[in-house]
Amino acid sequence: MIAQTPPPPYYAVVFTSLRSDIDNGYSSMAMYMEELAREQPGFLGVESSRDEAVGITVSYCDSLESIKAWKANMQHTVAQERGRAEWYTGYKTRICKVERDYEF
Amino acid sequence: MIAQTPPPPYYAVVFTSLRSDIDNGYSSMAMYMEELAREQPGFLGVESSRDEAVGITVSYCDSLESIKAWKANMQHTVAQERGRAEWYTGYKTRICKVERDYEF
Repeated sequence: MIAQTPPPPYYAVVFTSLRSDIDNGYSSMAMYMEELAREQPGFLGVESSRDEAVGITVSYCDSLESIKAWKANMQHTVAQERGRAEWYTGYKTRICKVERDYEF
Repeated sequence: MIAQTPPPPYYAVVFTSLRSDIDNGYSSMAMYMEELAREQPGFLGVESSRDEAVGITVSYCDSLESIKAWKANMQHTVAQERGRAEWYTGYKTRICKVERDYEF
């Protein structure tokens, strides 16, 4: 559940969302999106936590190019549009370059 | 609950942890650490989500220097040591430069 990423540098997409009360299909879509992410070229791993109010998903990629390709992915876009309408009351996405990491 | 950060670039510290079953003082310490973080020079915001297994906290800072100062903070160090022993079965910290963001 902690992504086994290679030594930096690599890229992270931090997606923070405020959930609405609607759960209509959200869980199965989230799992499907994660499956799709794993199939993307350059995918390095994903970490996710969700409580009643806030969800944070961090996806790791080897390059900005991988992130762009993922964004352009049609099915992902469909989920984003539906997310905008139904599942989230707000979200923020941050594209980051991981410069250092350490673990225990 | 979504941090109101300024336009990029800025820095993010992504802290992903696997929780142990022990909750002895964890919640109050986590709140205390967040208060301390807010007092740090260069602090821009924090986002946090925690479910039964995984916790993700993302702290935002204006510079790498702010992150270093925070790391050196004694009380933070104490909480880290205690966290290592009691609250977490594993964690990973990633220091990232936020290059782009967008929201809804």
